Amino acid sequence: MKRYRLRVAYDGSNYHGWQEQNNGITIEQVLNETLSKVLKEEITVIGASRTDAGVHAYGNVAVFDSETRIPAEKICYAVNPFLPADIRIMKSEEVEDDFHPRFVDSRKTYEYHIHNSRIPFPTNRLYSHQVIVPLDVEAMQEAGKYMVGTHDFKCFCAAKAQVKTTVRTVNDVRVRKNGDEIIVEVQGEGFLYNMVRIITGTLIKVGLHAYPPEHVKEIIASKDRAQAGETVPAKGLFLQQIEYL
Amino acid sequence: MKRYRLRVAYDGSNYHGWQEQNNGITIEQVLNETLSKVLKEEITVIGASRTDAGVHAYGNVAVFDSETRIPAEKICYAVNPFLPADIRIMKSEEVEDDFHPRFVDSRKTYEYHIHNSRIPFPTNRLYSHQVIVPLDVEAMQEAGKYMVGTHDFKCFCAAKAQVKTTVRTVNDVRVRKNGDEIIVEVQGEGFLYNMVRIITGTLIKVGLHAYPPEHVKEIIASKDRAQAGETVPAKGLFLQQIEYL
Repeated sequence: MKRYRLRVAYDGSNYHGWQEQNNGITIEQVLNETLSKVLKEEITVIGASRTDAGVHAYGNVAVFDSETRIPAEKICYAVNPFLPADIRIMKSEEVEDDFHPRFVDSRKTYEYHIHNSRIPFPTNRLYSHQVIVPLDVEAMQEAGKYMVGTHDFKCFCAAKAQVKTTVRTVNDVRVRKNGDEIIVEVQGEGFLYNMVRIITGTLIKVGLHAYPPEHVKEIIASKDRAQAGETVPAKGLFLQQIEYL
Repeated sequence: MKRYRLRVAYDGSNYHGWQEQNNGITIEQVLNETLSKVLKEEITVIGASRTDAGVHAYGNVAVFDSETRIPAEKICYAVNPFLPADIRIMKSEEVEDDFHPRFVDSRKTYEYHIHNSRIPFPTNRLYSHQVIVPLDVEAMQEAGKYMVGTHDFKCFCAAKAQVKTTVRTVNDVRVRKNGDEIIVEVQGEGFLYNMVRIITGTLIKVGLHAYPPEHVKEIIASKDRAQAGETVPAKGLFLQQIEYL
């Protein structure tokens, strides 16, 4: 029995998120069913990030144990033809028997894609959140800097979430513009529920001049979800990569 | 009665192309129905390019006549909310009464998107053609140069097409690489049926070293469709813009 790690990419549009549940099809469920079929044994993956319904990934991580004789790095090529076109295993490799994708220190990078133009192109509608009013990208960049560091980020946590502590470390928040697209990149060692989507909603308010960049310091200090911006839609969010430290 | 010109963008995935027909919904049909509803008179658009099923557009052009009192440049904002999310009017303006989008000299720019990686990302699957084997972009660039000029392009015309002449002028063929994406840009003053998709299929064969770049000269001289590459899928093709000369 060996432990394998997969890097998994998916278009989340048609899934009820990562984690198996009763009221809709999930990425985890499709992976379990497909791996079990191809490897001819019952496979149960452990995911690194239980992304929400509609969120996409370039680099989520899953591990599983198997008796397969397929070489580790070939598993992706063996399994991909049996997966639906909106899920792909980008890489497969063997890891230590006790490697757990959530209990090892890691750094996650998320990207949030905003399409910022008065009339958005139809082919961008599935993978970005559309903001019609021109955003001040420089103000957003400045505001992002106040979010970096170890803080109590209660203001950026969905009210319904149940967690022991709302202290988290954000390593970097970058905002870049590429034509009509504005991309918010957030890197951190663990995130609260909906945190990247609320961070982006807050940066959009700064970009609209609803408040100045430095007001972000007060929002964080308030620990009040109501002070921050809205939770922007899932379809603009991509889990880019998970680096194990 | 005035004549108006629209720049129309669409995600062609869910349409049976531009032109109205009996066996599926088309862009033209949706525009006619929506414009008629919003402007409260019967509208019939004339399209510049009757794109095929599944082909996308950033800048197709349509004209129509109307008695509307909505200012020309506001028509797009009045109509867009009533269009499905995969069709958008990017611009509306008044033109001369006798302007016809197909009978005026124009230059069209198409882009064909190839996703060139061993395992393609799921979110690219709807808008690009996936080629797994690495392509030689420099060879494709060189081959493209042999396609520029006024030639009998019978070799790049779908066999079933009925046209008076297969002589056309191609102004430019450029191939650029952006990460895993290879974009073929073709500019010309009118194209034969499936021409850009066959040009791209031929460039892919060059990129795979099936034949050297200069063999394109012989393919063109042969006037034989069977000598050229395959017709690549519609989903990678974008009608970028139409410039009226």
